[in-house]
Amino acid sequence: MVEKRTPIPVHEAVEKIMFFASSGETELIPLEECYGRFLAEDLKADHDVPPFDRSPYDGFAIRSEDTKLANQSNAVEFEVIEEIGAGSVAKQEVGAFQAIRIMTGAQMPIQCDAVVMLELTKEYERDGRKYMSLKRQLQSGDNISFQGEDTQKGNVLVEKGTRINPGVSALLATFGYDKVLVGRKPTVGIYATGTELLDVHEGLVPGKIRNSNSYMIRSQVERAGAEPIYFGKLADDFDTCYEAIKEAIEKVDILITTGGVSVGDYDYLPDIYKKLGAEVLFNKIGMRPGSVTTVAQFEGKLLFGLSGNPSACYVGFELFVRPIIRTLLNNPNPHLKKITARLDVDFPKPNPFTRFVRSSISFKDGMVSVTPSGLDKSNVVTSLSGANALMVLPGGTRGYEQGMQVDVLLLEDEEGCQWPWN
Amino acid sequence: MVEKRTPIPVHEAVEKIMFFASSGETELIPLEECYGRFLAEDLKADHDVPPFDRSPYDGFAIRSEDTKLANQSNAVEFEVIEEIGAGSVAKQEVGAFQAIRIMTGAQMPIQCDAVVMLELTKEYERDGRKYMSLKRQLQSGDNISFQGEDTQKGNVLVEKGTRINPGVSALLATFGYDKVLVGRKPTVGIYATGTELLDVHEGLVPGKIRNSNSYMIRSQVERAGAEPIYFGKLADDFDTCYEAIKEAIEKVDILITTGGVSVGDYDYLPDIYKKLGAEVLFNKIGMRPGSVTTVAQFEGKLLFGLSGNPSACYVGFELFVRPIIRTLLNNPNPHLKKITARLDVDFPKPNPFTRFVRSSISFKDGMVSVTPSGLDKSNVVTSLSGANALMVLPGGTRGYEQGMQVDVLLLEDEEGCQWPWN
Repeated sequence: MVEKRTPIPVHEAVEKIMFFASSGETELIPLEECYGRFLAEDLKADHDVPPFDRSPYDGFAIRSEDTKLANQSNAVEFEVIEEIGAGSVAKQEVGAFQAIRIMTGAQMPIQCDAVVMLELTKEYERDGRKYMSLKRQLQSGDNISFQGEDTQKGNVLVEKGTRINPGVSALLATFGYDKVLVGRKPTVGIYATGTELLDVHEGLVPGKIRNSNSYMIRSQVERAGAEPIYFGKLADDFDTCYEAIKEAIEKVDILITTGGVSVGDYDYLPDIYKKLGAEVLFNKIGMRPGSVTTVAQFEGKLLFGLSGNPSACYVGFELFVRPIIRTLLNNPNPHLKKITARLDVDFPKPNPFTRFVRSSISFKDGMVSVTPSGLDKSNVVTSLSGANALMVLPGGTRGYEQGMQVDVLLLEDEEGCQWPWN
Repeated sequence: MVEKRTPIPVHEAVEKIMFFASSGETELIPLEECYGRFLAEDLKADHDVPPFDRSPYDGFAIRSEDTKLANQSNAVEFEVIEEIGAGSVAKQEVGAFQAIRIMTGAQMPIQCDAVVMLELTKEYERDGRKYMSLKRQLQSGDNISFQGEDTQKGNVLVEKGTRINPGVSALLATFGYDKVLVGRKPTVGIYATGTELLDVHEGLVPGKIRNSNSYMIRSQVERAGAEPIYFGKLADDFDTCYEAIKEAIEKVDILITTGGVSVGDYDYLPDIYKKLGAEVLFNKIGMRPGSVTTVAQFEGKLLFGLSGNPSACYVGFELFVRPIIRTLLNNPNPHLKKITARLDVDFPKPNPFTRFVRSSISFKDGMVSVTPSGLDKSNVVTSLSGANALMVLPGGTRGYEQGMQVDVLLLEDEEGCQWPWN
C-alpha cells in the first residue's frame, strides 16, 4: 500500500524548520586559528585609531606659527634637533624654529602642530648642526592624522555572527583580541542508509553502488561552518537503524540520514521517527529534486531525513540544514544568498513543483547569467561538482525561456541572505 | 639621500613573478579530509555510470515481448516470482509472463528488458501466488537506466588542479578514491618588520601599534589554500633581520615580509636582498596602494617584500602571492577572477597610477554593482573586513563616474582566472 503524502511549499518547510533554529555555544580560540570561524561577540575598538596624532608622511614635525613669514622668496630655517622613526617618541622639547625629522606613522611631538613633507624642504648642515628650510606657510593641523579620526575606542567595528575573513583578522589583531570568542562548530552526525551501499574502498559488486552521499554531505557540512561526524552506513533493517539513530541523536547537534525516506518497501525512517516519538514536521515538499525529504524534531533537536538520491540530498542539505547551522553560529543571514540572473537556456516544459536546478553562474559586461551545470545526460554525473548555484524555477503552468530573469541561490557565497523565500 | 625607483606596470610585475611559478608537491590524504584541497591528478571514472542496467522507478521488471497483446481492453497477467531491493540481484530466471518486483536503483534481471511503473499495474494474489496485470505495451528498453549512459569507465570527470567542493567529494567517493592525491599545501613564511610593532596581547604604548598584518596575511594564505608559518616580528635592525630572513628561506616555499620596503631610513629589505645575493625583480609598481612592493627571487624561491601599510599589504598579497600559491597547487586559473561591474559612486580625481580600491560587489536585477567598502574616513579601519572585491581603476588623465563599467577582482571566489591583465 503506497502511503499518501501531501506536499507543502518550500518556504513553509523552511519556516517549520527555522522554528527550531537557535544560537549555539561559544568557545575562546587563539587568534591564529580564527580564519573562517564566526564571531560570537561584537568586535570593538579597544583604542582610538590612530591611537595618537601621527605623521602620514616622512617629513619634519614643526610648530606652524614658525612658518608665518615663509613664502616663495623667503625660506624659513629650522634646526633639526632629533629624528624619530615609527614606534619611537620624541625625547626633546621642540622650541621656536626647531624641527624633528619624523617617519611615516611616528607619533607627533606634543609641541608640534604640523608636518612638512620631505620633498618641500631643503636639508643642510652648518657647524655640525642639522638644518632644513622651507618656503611655504603651514596651518595648524596640516599633514597630521589625528587620534581617533578613523575610529573611536568602544565603536563596534564588526558584528557578532560575521564570518572571519582576512580583514576581520587584521581588526582582531589591531584591537588586541589575541583570543577570539567564536561560535563552537555545531556537530552534524551523518548516517547513510541502504543495503546497496558499499564503502568507498570496496570494489563494485553487482547491484551495489559506493556510498557517495556521506562524503558529499561531510563537505557541505564543512562548507557551512560545522563539524561533520560520520557514523557509518546502515543496512535496511529496522531494528539496527532504530538503535543506531537513537544513540546518535545524543551525540550531535543535528542528525542527518540519507536514504530510507521514500515510500519504497525498505524505507524505514518514517517508522523510526514514530517509534522514537519524534514529531515529523513534514515528509513531502513541493520541489524537485528532494520532494521526499522528511524532517522531524526530537526534544528540540532536528533530524533530517534527506533523500538517498545525490542531487536531492545535496539540495535538501543546502535549503534546510545550512540555515540551522548558520543560526547556531549566530549568523544573521543563515540562508543561501539569492540573486537574479539571466537564464541562458530554455526550460520549455512546465513543472507543477518548484525546481532547483544545479547550475553555474557566469559574469559578462556587468550582468550575471545562469546555466544548468548538467545540461546533457553525460553531465549528470558531474553536474554537482560544476555547480556554484541552484537555479530556482517556481512550479506552475508555464515553462521558462532563454533571456528571462530567474532567481538563483549562490552555493559558494559566504554572506548569505536573511529570507530568500517570497 | 632618497633612492630613485622606476615603477613598472602591474601586469609586468605579475609576469615577472609568474616566470618563477611552478607546480608543487603532492600528497595522498584520506577522502574525509579532502574538502577545500586541490586535486593533483585527474579524477577518472573507475566504472560505468550506471554501473549496470537498473530501474529508475519502483515497479516490475518484465520481458517487453510479453506485453505485445496488452491494451486498454486487454490486461496481460504476469506472475511475480521475486522481489529485489536496491543492492540485491535477482536469484531466479524470468520466463514468459513472469515479473520481478524491482525497487528504484536495483539491477535489472538479465532476462528482462523493460520496467513497468507500479502505478500502471494491478497487484493481486491467487492460490498463494502473486500476480500483477497491466494494460499497456512496453518497448524493449522502456524505463531502464542503461549501464554507462551517464559516464563511461576511464572518462576524466574533474581535472587536476580543481578545488574539491562537495560535488567533487561525491564523485571521489563514487569512483573509489578512498585516498585522494592532492597538492601539498605550500608553506608560506611570514615575518613582520618594524620596531613600532607590538604583539597582539600587549597593551598599547606611545608610538606603537599592534602587529595586525601578520594575522591578516595568515588568513589570506589560508584562503588561498596554503599553510601559513608565522616566524614572528623583527625590530628594525639590519643584522637581526638579515640572519632571520636567511634562515627562514630554507624552511618555506614562499617567504613574505611586511614593512621595511619603503625608502625610509629604517627600510632594510632592499639591502638584505642585496646581501643575500637575491635578484630583485622589481621594487616599485605603478599602483596604489602597494607601490613599494618589492619582490626578489633567491635560487628560484620568491621573497615577497610587502608594504607595512595594511591595505597595500593586502592588495600585494592577492595580486602577487596568491597566483604563486595556486600554481603550486596546479590550479590552471591562479589569479583573482576578474569581472566587470557598474560603478556606484564617482571617483572624479584622476590618478597617474592604477588604483585597487577595496570594495564590495552587490547584485540587483541580474546586474553587478561595485562600491568602495571604505567610502568615508570612519570606514577606513573596517574597509578590508567589508571587502569582497578589489575595484581596478586604471591610471590616466580621467576620473571615473557613477554608472561606468569597471573591472573588479573577486576576493572570495574560488574559480579564479587565467590572466586578468590586459
